[in-house]
Amino acid sequence: MSLELENKNLLLEFEDKVQLGDKALLTDLLNDQNISDVAELINEYPEHEGLIIDSMAINRAVSVFKILDIAQQKDIVKALPSFKTAELLNELPPDDRTDFLEELPKNVIRDLIKLLNPEERKITLTHLGYPEDSVGRLMTPDYVYVYEHNTIEEVFATIRAVAKNTETIDVIYVINENGELVDDLRIRDVILAAPNKLVNQIIDGRVVALNVTDDQEHANQVFKMNNRVALPVTDDNNILLGIVTIDDMLWVANEEYSEDMQKMGGTEALDEPYLDIPLLKLFRKRIGWLVVLFLGEMLTATAMGYFEGEIAKAVVLALFVPLIISSGGNSGSQASTLIIQAMAVGDISLSDWWRVLRRELISGLMLGGVLGIIGFIRVGVWHSIAPGLYGPHWQMIAATVGCSLIGVVLWGTLSGSMLPIVLKRLGADPAVSSAPFVATLVDVTGLIIYFSVAYFFLRGLLL
Amino acid sequence: MSLELENKNLLLEFEDKVQLGDKALLTDLLNDQNISDVAELINEYPEHEGLIIDSMAINRAVSVFKILDIAQQKDIVKALPSFKTAELLNELPPDDRTDFLEELPKNVIRDLIKLLNPEERKITLTHLGYPEDSVGRLMTPDYVYVYEHNTIEEVFATIRAVAKNTETIDVIYVINENGELVDDLRIRDVILAAPNKLVNQIIDGRVVALNVTDDQEHANQVFKMNNRVALPVTDDNNILLGIVTIDDMLWVANEEYSEDMQKMGGTEALDEPYLDIPLLKLFRKRIGWLVVLFLGEMLTATAMGYFEGEIAKAVVLALFVPLIISSGGNSGSQASTLIIQAMAVGDISLSDWWRVLRRELISGLMLGGVLGIIGFIRVGVWHSIAPGLYGPHWQMIAATVGCSLIGVVLWGTLSGSMLPIVLKRLGADPAVSSAPFVATLVDVTGLIIYFSVAYFFLRGLLL
Repeated sequence: MSLELENKNLLLEFEDKVQLGDKALLTDLLNDQNISDVAELINEYPEHEGLIIDSMAINRAVSVFKILDIAQQKDIVKALPSFKTAELLNELPPDDRTDFLEELPKNVIRDLIKLLNPEERKITLTHLGYPEDSVGRLMTPDYVYVYEHNTIEEVFATIRAVAKNTETIDVIYVINENGELVDDLRIRDVILAAPNKLVNQIIDGRVVALNVTDDQEHANQVFKMNNRVALPVTDDNNILLGIVTIDDMLWVANEEYSEDMQKMGGTEALDEPYLDIPLLKLFRKRIGWLVVLFLGEMLTATAMGYFEGEIAKAVVLALFVPLIISSGGNSGSQASTLIIQAMAVGDISLSDWWRVLRRELISGLMLGGVLGIIGFIRVGVWHSIAPGLYGPHWQMIAATVGCSLIGVVLWGTLSGSMLPIVLKRLGADPAVSSAPFVATLVDVTGLIIYFSVAYFFLRGLLL
Repeated sequence: MSLELENKNLLLEFEDKVQLGDKALLTDLLNDQNISDVAELINEYPEHEGLIIDSMAINRAVSVFKILDIAQQKDIVKALPSFKTAELLNELPPDDRTDFLEELPKNVIRDLIKLLNPEERKITLTHLGYPEDSVGRLMTPDYVYVYEHNTIEEVFATIRAVAKNTETIDVIYVINENGELVDDLRIRDVILAAPNKLVNQIIDGRVVALNVTDDQEHANQVFKMNNRVALPVTDDNNILLGIVTIDDMLWVANEEYSEDMQKMGGTEALDEPYLDIPLLKLFRKRIGWLVVLFLGEMLTATAMGYFEGEIAKAVVLALFVPLIISSGGNSGSQASTLIIQAMAVGDISLSDWWRVLRRELISGLMLGGVLGIIGFIRVGVWHSIAPGLYGPHWQMIAATVGCSLIGVVLWGTLSGSMLPIVLKRLGADPAVSSAPFVATLVDVTGLIIYFSVAYFFLRGLLL
């Protein structure tokens, strides 16, 4: 089935219905579509986004609203009459509602929360009380629970009674009289069981639960490792508070990915799609890190200043400065990216620092060795092509370049790999030890290594 | 429930049972644990991994095997007797089996495929025929399908008959007599429907399907946008071939994330956890890009060579070389990361190149402007502290530094943002236009910009 072909027809039909101005026809058309197609329609016709949401059945409007990005959500809430906004917000699953509200200024949150009915208001305020990026924020209270002593027949009755209003019935939670989580039950096992059996006869006591304060990244790992479409969330006393569904994990994974990438590239997380973010905001998100790196990089000018006399005596030394420092930067950002990625997916923990250091020590020597040899040969080959280029002491210059490369690459590799670990140990986000950050750090020290090696080889000759 | 505390007890109990040498007791212990805990046990005692898998019920052994990493999987298959390997491979869901086989040498694949029973062998060979990273590779044939004309009662009978062997029954697929996909049906709707209703009375015709050749990243997007725990996979004639479940998407997202990160850091994708990959293999994955970048960066030495005369006349120019080129590199890698990330999550498509160019033109001028002003002030302040430092023409040097920064940052921003788009247009992976790659590109051109600006301001004065 070609989604694209269908969409073109949809666009034409939509324009038609809008021109006719018949809202009932529009409602029929929209209720017939997949929610992802309606979302695309809103992307195509942002000027009609209020109309589109307003024309749909409320439960479907909510599904569409959920997958729009924050800028569109804000626009829609502005475009809708306030009774419709109230309806929409009340129907929105609590986790998505919290996500949306979080992005708004405090006074707007206050106004919108007033639109909620008392029960939803209580849930939302509880949600907002959990730390950002905690499991509590993703939790939905729309789940099915039964008691240990229920029969399978009673379980079916419960499902029929609540299924319309719950986000997922694929997993059912078993609690005791105190509200403590006892087990989870897959719907398949309920269907397969004899109707007169008791719940506690078919449970296996193997339940994996998340704590409400757990990190969302941790939840992601637990989902990956435990083949479940939903996981229960409990407090420290094992009281069942809600559930988290696996589809939220895809969004979490995506957000983590985007944030990490942006930080690695030396910019603050954008929070909004690149093309939607206002230029001035984009500028503000980017300039901060660039200025910090620039100020750091200014130390290179200071360092070079110390060696001005050496450069004046042997201008040839200046020619290799960019080559040397960039090799250190490249190997450093390579190492830091590897370690950040490995920490993000849980392959490396803080206690592994010693093993990482040992591996990077050997890797750095090997990588530096290869580049050093190429650098040495490069000087030699150029000398043989144009003999005057590097003067009479070209061997010493080649040795300077080669040995500096080993030192700089080793240093880049070591500092690039250790920095994310140190940052994490200090409680900071390792992803900020981005490629540009490591490169800047290595640039300054790389210069000192280079000129020290040069002094060693060329003292008495050129220096 | 504290997972960690539980695990410590588990470790002790496990050691106990292993020392006793009683396999039945071990089996009891292992069958009582969560699969994620057993996986952790294998991490703790790699020497017992064969024993652990061998002691478990086969369906649980399979669940554990699935979530281990490839190195451990290989070791286990080596440690198990071949009849046990056969059992394990036959029970493994086809998508996971294909994933595992893919990683092995061709002759080992051949040997292992012989262990499969004819039906599983057929499925596996079909899987291996689909392109890597295609939806076909993730597909499982273990799903429940019913016909349009079935009654709800018949649907329940079908579910009971096959539920034990299927990966998910949360969604049921409706096909017609030709095997074409008609709709999908949530289990909740089946439970809520009257037993004598027909399937085609409760379906809504809104089904989202994946094509078997679709990209896995595309599948990920579709899952995010369509609140389903499983999606049907069809061929070009809309024949239902299998389903893909959402839990596989978490693994796909994770893999994409790791690969992109590694490429962005200037290294080949590792395929194995950092601490497990042999050092020599790690070296090979890293050295390639470093050498390419190094060869590119050599052009800086050549470019600097052209300006050797200028440097000799005005050594002060050399002092700012690292500062200038690194600023270009930083702004370039920032821009390229932003664009790669935005393309990866679907915020930017190729046709947006013109909008991106316009935005980056303005951003580049603004970012360059700020750094240029700071650079200008830096020279002025240092001059007023140590008046002799930059000689009598310090204003011209300040102007050179300031204007070069504007030019270099603008150039870095433009090339950093356009390169991923061009690469994608050419069919290459945009993620290889990593920070180090862009930085190297900008270094060489940055030097030319810098010395050209210097020539403009200092001609007749120092040059």
